[in-house]
Amino acid sequence: MSAPFAHVAVIGFGLLGSSIARSVHEAMPGVALSGWDADPAVRDRARAIGLAPSIPDEAADAVRGADLVILCVPVGAMGDAARSIAPGLDPDALVSDVGSCKASVAKALAEALPGQPVIPAHPVAGTENSGPDAGFASLFRNRWCIVTPPEEADVALVERLAAFWEALGARVETMNAEHHDLVLAVTSHLPHLIAYTIVGTASDLEDVTESEVIKYSAGGFRDFTRIAASDPTMWRDVFLSNKDAVLEMLQRFSEDLTALQRAIRWGDGDALFDLFTKTRAIRRSIIEEGQDDARPDFGRSDHNGKSA
Amino acid sequence: MSAPFAHVAVIGFGLLGSSIARSVHEAMPGVALSGWDADPAVRDRARAIGLAPSIPDEAADAVRGADLVILCVPVGAMGDAARSIAPGLDPDALVSDVGSCKASVAKALAEALPGQPVIPAHPVAGTENSGPDAGFASLFRNRWCIVTPPEEADVALVERLAAFWEALGARVETMNAEHHDLVLAVTSHLPHLIAYTIVGTASDLEDVTESEVIKYSAGGFRDFTRIAASDPTMWRDVFLSNKDAVLEMLQRFSEDLTALQRAIRWGDGDALFDLFTKTRAIRRSIIEEGQDDARPDFGRSDHNGKSA
Repeated sequence: MSAPFAHVAVIGFGLLGSSIARSVHEAMPGVALSGWDADPAVRDRARAIGLAPSIPDEAADAVRGADLVILCVPVGAMGDAARSIAPGLDPDALVSDVGSCKASVAKALAEALPGQPVIPAHPVAGTENSGPDAGFASLFRNRWCIVTPPEEADVALVERLAAFWEALGARVETMNAEHHDLVLAVTSHLPHLIAYTIVGTASDLEDVTESEVIKYSAGGFRDFTRIAASDPTMWRDVFLSNKDAVLEMLQRFSEDLTALQRAIRWGDGDALFDLFTKTRAIRRSIIEEGQDDARPDFGRSDHNGKSA
Repeated sequence: MSAPFAHVAVIGFGLLGSSIARSVHEAMPGVALSGWDADPAVRDRARAIGLAPSIPDEAADAVRGADLVILCVPVGAMGDAARSIAPGLDPDALVSDVGSCKASVAKALAEALPGQPVIPAHPVAGTENSGPDAGFASLFRNRWCIVTPPEEADVALVERLAAFWEALGARVETMNAEHHDLVLAVTSHLPHLIAYTIVGTASDLEDVTESEVIKYSAGGFRDFTRIAASDPTMWRDVFLSNKDAVLEMLQRFSEDLTALQRAIRWGDGDALFDLFTKTRAIRRSIIEEGQDDARPDFGRSDHNGKSA
């Protein structure tokens, strides 16, 4: 089977971009690979650790000859990244991305690259670590990649992009950008927002010191701090770009939290017990679906022991 | 060095009780061990897997001759558990516990066991799994155990209890029960409450199916489901027993969340970026303090690969 693309260009060497480069190298050794990052220090580091054979200083040079270009930058930077590669783009090259919001990215790319084939995508995978050293080849294995083709997209191109992600180990689903943004608002954006908030709340108390919060974090708090250590620029952009869906989910969450608060205040143990029982079933389904692991180490030790 | 106690009785063979039994067996092989559980099926299972050489059918028989009795039951069941062991208790035996709330437990035990030496304690350790099979000997290693001695407690007894926990691998801190309850409200109770809420919110949507929530949970949601899979009875009791501190922390969290909601609505990217940067530092401190691990598997693979 031949690879779905002959030359892949990765723009942005953060966690996702550097993982794609490593994964392409491993899964499709015959495919040409080039890349670029807006930060000269990151370009130097990417060259030093060999993320791609060709990492020129100009964005346009990095995409010359590529038939697939993947933008791996914060969603608020997609338009600028697209404009910076435009002069070097082959007119038939497919431009895709890995952003966590899809409607805003589709709009930004369509405006920046009129006439260019564009199919946004979002691999639902990640860790709290950032930068070119944080990536690893198995990041996408058994994770879902959501492809959000615009209505006018070429079906054959959509299939090639799906084949590309499957070759990296991912499972592929397609849906429209608006539905993606609603789904991710609840499965990813709201959890991050809440984790950032509670870590902020805990660090602003008068009666409990920050050192106590840190010492006794194994009671549950530490799991939130992991998510709340994610890249600040990426997440600022996500919340600003998917504002409506995030605000809608936040409103529902606040209502549910208020109901629980009321149950605690009035000592309604049955209401608490019923909710706490229901939520166990969802956990079981996630484990059965292979999206997490029942072992206390989450089975995350499966990959190559990469450290932050 | 001789063991701080000669005969330890464990009442309740859930995650904590079964971990203590395993850990005592490993760390203090010369110490006599007995135990009991209110559920006959759990007693049978505990005998089958050999959690203690002596597991009689009556609670009072399980504590006869013990110089340390540890109650490992939900905090709402402490009073009943204490009353059920009372007829067999040696008058000098130290009664302790592992509950997540300390003021309410101290009160319940003092009422149920007048004149008995009682020193409540709380090892800040756990997983989302429950039952006699869920425990493992290394659960307390490098975790903090908070001892909350009543004002009239015998200092020598407090020191023996601390030595006991240190022998199981824990680090020990003492504080009063009220301060413990405030600290744990933020580091453990609030995180659990929020995790339960968001998992409930996500399962009640009209436009996003539960199957989508499960499929795309790797974007952050799955970490919350782990916490929200914790034992419903235990957590119902925690929220009812530590009501005031939990409601206070919940109020602060809600205010902070509202401020963030406002920042998103008005597009205040700087406010978001500032908070998201601040929360990274706390994560770093938790890792430096040894309460979590920078690796994506959290270093939790260190223990014996126990599965749910």
